[in-house]
Amino acid sequence: MSANLNVKTDAYPTRKADRPEWIERVDPVVYDHELKQDVIGKEQLAFYEENGYLFFDAFFKSEEVAALRAELKRVLQESRGSTRSEVILEPGGDEVRSVFAVHRDNEVFRELSLHPRLQAVVQQLLGSQVYVHQSRINFKPGFTGKEFYWHSDFETWHAEDGMPRMRALSVSIALEDNTLYNGALMVVPGSHRTFVSCVGATPDDHYKDSLRKQEYGVPDQDSLTKLVEQGGLEMPVGKAGSMLLFDCNIMHGSGSNITPHPRSNVFCVFNSVENRLEEPFSAGKPRPEFIASRK
Amino acid sequence: MSANLNVKTDAYPTRKADRPEWIERVDPVVYDHELKQDVIGKEQLAFYEENGYLFFDAFFKSEEVAALRAELKRVLQESRGSTRSEVILEPGGDEVRSVFAVHRDNEVFRELSLHPRLQAVVQQLLGSQVYVHQSRINFKPGFTGKEFYWHSDFETWHAEDGMPRMRALSVSIALEDNTLYNGALMVVPGSHRTFVSCVGATPDDHYKDSLRKQEYGVPDQDSLTKLVEQGGLEMPVGKAGSMLLFDCNIMHGSGSNITPHPRSNVFCVFNSVENRLEEPFSAGKPRPEFIASRK
Repeated sequence: MSANLNVKTDAYPTRKADRPEWIERVDPVVYDHELKQDVIGKEQLAFYEENGYLFFDAFFKSEEVAALRAELKRVLQESRGSTRSEVILEPGGDEVRSVFAVHRDNEVFRELSLHPRLQAVVQQLLGSQVYVHQSRINFKPGFTGKEFYWHSDFETWHAEDGMPRMRALSVSIALEDNTLYNGALMVVPGSHRTFVSCVGATPDDHYKDSLRKQEYGVPDQDSLTKLVEQGGLEMPVGKAGSMLLFDCNIMHGSGSNITPHPRSNVFCVFNSVENRLEEPFSAGKPRPEFIASRK
Repeated sequence: MSANLNVKTDAYPTRKADRPEWIERVDPVVYDHELKQDVIGKEQLAFYEENGYLFFDAFFKSEEVAALRAELKRVLQESRGSTRSEVILEPGGDEVRSVFAVHRDNEVFRELSLHPRLQAVVQQLLGSQVYVHQSRINFKPGFTGKEFYWHSDFETWHAEDGMPRMRALSVSIALEDNTLYNGALMVVPGSHRTFVSCVGATPDDHYKDSLRKQEYGVPDQDSLTKLVEQGGLEMPVGKAGSMLLFDCNIMHGSGSNITPHPRSNVFCVFNSVENRLEEPFSAGKPRPEFIASRK
């Protein structure tokens, strides 16, 4: 084991054994049960605790969506042919798949990450101030949008970024209408309560490939089958401006998109300020700042 | 142009020009409007004529489904590692994707192709006796099932097999429950009324690759966008034993399947005996008998 692995307090060991293991979550899901805002109520807190996600139809107003969409188009234009590391291409193609760190590099998306109603919900659930751990725009073009295989985000953030505990969540904001047909995100309700450790050590600079197509930190098929037997599958979809909020450890993925309808979205991860990154728990060196903020 | 191309009476030229073209269908969709059976009525005939497909929930009894599924499993077992040309593997893997000519090689699936209620519907729509042009089992495994990109079957059958006119249809019989999440077939309603010619000449022995991943006979994105704008998208799903019947020229495709649920189905193409194959319209030599029966 390399000297700079964080071995002190690893509540969720992964990529260390040669067989997958189920570890029961030791962290809360909802960190503050006392309502501090009026965007969501007790019922939604309970739903989130039980299922690991919340879906909001029309969370953003149509003017907000229009402005975000215009900015997304601008960023896409600007990113074509770019060699910046923040720009990730589709596997086996040269179409832009994602642009990272938009909350840092772009004023419109920075404001979005500070959106008052959004911040209120996130702080309620995580029970503290939060900061943006990662942000990106996903383009998921029509016809050629590829799948994202099943994964727990926390597994990667813990192994490769050194996120110590489960006290983070993601929001995916739809900038186009999502349908059941154009490769929307699927979640396995309830799967956030189990940590499925993965097999195989992390190669150096793994992120350069994993953002296009992940090969490590991939859960085993038996575990996935069991989780889906227990919790089923949901694919929450809505019009542009809808928002899916999900726990850092929920199992999620999405199929390909052969429809003519693109499925662009903004993706933003909030982490509790009390859950700052340490050294990676299962990787040689931390991933770069544009993927995992250490501020 | 090669000497053995059929150039006499090509109602639907394709793979001959360097730009795609829309050709209005000159053939009927429903060949016999006078009801000759009692499985479907006038309303369903009209729906089929308008939309190009029919969906039947529970067309087959659960005992029939159980028998078919058992046989499918047996064929899958038997086909693993087989080098028979009828056995097609997933692209980039060694999992079995399809087994062809099961109506010819397997007694259970031969009987299925002669199923009285099924035959009654098919003969009603095609207005004549029919024979099996092609049959196959598709396994579409869980987790790794790949997409089938958009295509018109007739485009390929016309170009590569020499099917002269649009007087054929396919049935896809679900042997597992199909959901909206496990890569079920999508159709573009109404698209069967337009023939979209494709670009690029057919290479020799194209079928060896095209059954895994098609690169010729692929409709252009502008045409697909326009067809979907006109007709929308449908994904008819149901339990095991349900059946999707669709016209030979309807645009259809399916996304990937990352769910744990396989989507095995039997696929059978019926052609009118009055529409027997000729020489290929846009290929050097006909595809082999197990893909396109000339009996």
